[in-house]
Amino acid sequence: MSRLTHLDDQGNANMVDVSDKQITFREAVAYAEVQMRPDTLALITEGGHKKGDVLAVARIAGIQAAKRTSDLIPLCHPLMLSKVALELVPNGERNVVEITATCKLSGQTGVEMEALTAATVAGLTIYDMCKAVDKEMVISAVKVLAKSGGKSGDWTAEKATC
Amino acid sequence: MSRLTHLDDQGNANMVDVSDKQITFREAVAYAEVQMRPDTLALITEGGHKKGDVLAVARIAGIQAAKRTSDLIPLCHPLMLSKVALELVPNGERNVVEITATCKLSGQTGVEMEALTAATVAGLTIYDMCKAVDKEMVISAVKVLAKSGGKSGDWTAEKATC
Amino acid sequence: MSRLTHLDDQGNANMVDVSDKQITFREAVAYAEVQMRPDTLALITEGGHKKGDVLAVARIAGIQAAKRTSDLIPLCHPLMLSKVALELVPNGERNVVEITATCKLSGQTGVEMEALTAATVAGLTIYDMCKAVDKEMVISAVKVLAKSGGKSGDWTAEKATC
Amino acid sequence: MSRLTHLDDQGNANMVDVSDKQITFREAVAYAEVQMRPDTLALITEGGHKKGDVLAVARIAGIQAAKRTSDLIPLCHPLMLSKVALELVPNGERNVVEITATCKLSGQTGVEMEALTAATVAGLTIYDMCKAVDKEMVISAVKVLAKSGGKSGDWTAEKATC
Amino acid sequence: MSRLTHLDDQGNANMVDVSDKQITFREAVAYAEVQMRPDTLALITEGGHKKGDVLAVARIAGIQAAKRTSDLIPLCHPLMLSKVALELVPNGERNVVEITATCKLSGQTGVEMEALTAATVAGLTIYDMCKAVDKEMVISAVKVLAKSGGKSGDWTAEKATC
Amino acid sequence: MSRLTHLDDQGNANMVDVSDKQITFREAVAYAEVQMRPDTLALITEGGHKKGDVLAVARIAGIQAAKRTSDLIPLCHPLMLSKVALELVPNGERNVVEITATCKLSGQTGVEMEALTAATVAGLTIYDMCKAVDKEMVISAVKVLAKSGGKSGDWTAEKATC
Repeated sequence: MSRLTHLDDQGNANMVDVSDKQITFREAVAYAEVQMRPDTLALITEGGHKKGDVLAVARIAGIQAAKRTSDLIPLCHPLMLSKVALELVPNGERNVVEITATCKLSGQTGVEMEALTAATVAGLTIYDMCKAVDKEMVISAVKVLAKSGGKSGDWTAEKATC
Repeated sequence: MSRLTHLDDQGNANMVDVSDKQITFREAVAYAEVQMRPDTLALITEGGHKKGDVLAVARIAGIQAAKRTSDLIPLCHPLMLSKVALELVPNGERNVVEITATCKLSGQTGVEMEALTAATVAGLTIYDMCKAVDKEMVISAVKVLAKSGGKSGDWTAEKATC
Repeated sequence: MSRLTHLDDQGNANMVDVSDKQITFREAVAYAEVQMRPDTLALITEGGHKKGDVLAVARIAGIQAAKRTSDLIPLCHPLMLSKVALELVPNGERNVVEITATCKLSGQTGVEMEALTAATVAGLTIYDMCKAVDKEMVISAVKVLAKSGGKSGDWTAEKATC
Repeated sequence: MSRLTHLDDQGNANMVDVSDKQITFREAVAYAEVQMRPDTLALITEGGHKKGDVLAVARIAGIQAAKRTSDLIPLCHPLMLSKVALELVPNGERNVVEITATCKLSGQTGVEMEALTAATVAGLTIYDMCKAVDKEMVISAVKVLAKSGGKSGDWTAEKATC
Repeated sequence: MSRLTHLDDQGNANMVDVSDKQITFREAVAYAEVQMRPDTLALITEGGHKKGDVLAVARIAGIQAAKRTSDLIPLCHPLMLSKVALELVPNGERNVVEITATCKLSGQTGVEMEALTAATVAGLTIYDMCKAVDKEMVISAVKVLAKSGGKSGDWTAEKATC
Repeated sequence: MSRLTHLDDQGNANMVDVSDKQITFREAVAYAEVQMRPDTLALITEGGHKKGDVLAVARIAGIQAAKRTSDLIPLCHPLMLSKVALELVPNGERNVVEITATCKLSGQTGVEMEALTAATVAGLTIYDMCKAVDKEMVISAVKVLAKSGGKSGDWTAEKATC
């Protein structure tokens, strides 16, 4: 039967021991989106430089957050990402900014948490920069889209909707 | 007309100048939830010690993340929280863990971002501890429920649904 | 004759060069204890959930501190722990909480400092949570119990008493 | 009857709410000592520059750790220290380095944890720099010597012995 | 006669005690510049989006570094900046990017170090992003241009040239 | 034609993907200098313990900053330095403190940024400790002196003057 890997027999939380795991190439892609009013989205997308800057700040915040994942999530292992990339796409039809984060490394543990942390913090940064004009934004659909590498092999999420 | 307060006339992102703002008592409440399979939720809630530990780890992660908000969100001001509290409630009907974070301080800026960061990182921590048994969890409905204090006054979100 | 490895010929402190050291599996176990009044210890151990929470917070603090060791101890090398575990045992006969921290990695340097930092910060966290009821707690007997791996080989402390 | 202030009615750990506390001048003094072999202590104290450097590194590590206390100890409030000072005195009679840390601020919470963290990390840094020649050092007698300010008033430890 | 304020009578380094200093409004402006080849500068300034992004990343890095000054510079006091702004201007005549950083707060210590750290880290970030095409960039003229507030009063640098 | 490696086709900044790079031994040496008045330099160099302490603090600050480079410079990869060393030499003829920082690792990316960050933060620390007596210090000539390892091979700067 399933049990939570971070809890030992007494139910105490500890870091999982990955000492004996193989070092393999691993990749994970995570998603998040920020829902907002149409006029808020317009403020992000209008004009040349403005668009660049709001999304640029969120992208940088996401990249830096990925590198700090083991500092934020108590039972995550420290690891050395070889790649972090964020794509932020304003979607005018759904009135969201769609955030996709990709992380890679060769190591003993997967990088889903790094990708999720990157996507989430990018979303929080968009929230921060727009909150003066829109208090009702919602960050949602935070999930792993795909992961590869490691013993459990490749995995892709079925289409999930919020 | 509205404009984004973090962008100057050239569209460059900078911290908002709060030097002349009043120091007032401020409070914010934020929400997030982690959607999961029923059997995943059961692993969190079953047994005495296990329940305590999973949610205890997430609570601590959220509290610590609140204190690091200005380190994570590039344009947030550093501030000295006088209170951070997280409530994590497993909801077996909706198969979610409901997370509510409350932050307080006396200062020149609001604490929505601190509350949002606390709720989100608590959610990511639950994700991390359960991901070995459930890859399809989704964090959603991340939003501000209420804020008080400051020039813009008190504000409570209308019932938002994901 | 012995000299301190972190000091160069002029007595200047620098990080030891481990570039040419072998990558080997390394493990260290460290200990610390928090001495307190019997009634303080009783507050920690009484009741089901309370016990879980005080020691759970200290355990998480210790794990996170282990990951930040190179940030705290100036001449420590950054390294990627593959395992951190803390055991916290209230001992009613001696009126102490006994803390044992174990760290593992494959790397070029030992992990004693990580284990010591984990045990110590767990002890400080217990102090913090109990200080309102007991100002005279003492953290003591902070030491390495055993280490293995690396050129200097395995080592176990003789029974040391405070 | 006493209860632990960091635990709420359900035994959940949260930061104590200090929003309504007075801002007063506060000071705390903490102590720690590192026990070592006589020849290890001699390596620290012999020679002019060497002495300076080992203790200087430990002093800096302690000062920096004091500033990071709220990042290390989960339920500590962030605060703005107005003074941190460490005194490190090699004691050849007892074969220890005696560490005294003093912290000050005007704020809503006491600074015992900052002083304890400073003293402890200074001790760990001495351990790190001497561990290649002495594996059996012990850090002990970590305690608060005195505190002043705040509602609970001034307090001085009775002579505590390890 | 002058002496260094961070050293006590024994020459030991400690944080200056600012407990008794007045809380006043303080502001500092610092400068740095990155010298590079004309074709390197052209890569930064050519095209619309590219220009935005290189300088946007450097600006964000500078802002975040200002907030971490007390973590980087051992004897700096923690403080709560109310404003950080960076201006980055490519100067095609001198083949430099000119960086000006402004910091503000109400507090007990000046903010020169925060402004200097912001300007310097912004410069290092430009170096990082351009180093693949230009290994011979030089960061220079890092200095305080002006400061105001505090007991020592207002001060403006005379025209300094590198 | 050259393009900036941190920008993708749309000009967005992301971490360079080093997943396929060889792990090789890498070393970099960087330089910075702090220009000051003769009497300021005399305060640093006069007396035995004082000299040790000012430069010792700067050296430690530089070492710790090297370890935090990926936290400060947004697009830097996290990496595990095997060696950091700083040399700080007061030069009475030119009235500068000359700072040379050396970093080493076996990894997939170069360590220039780590060496530059170490040298720069050491310089900022000297500035901090002397600013009460000399407001017109200037940090300059921040540059890479040499690097080795990696695909681009060894490289040594021609004599650059500020």
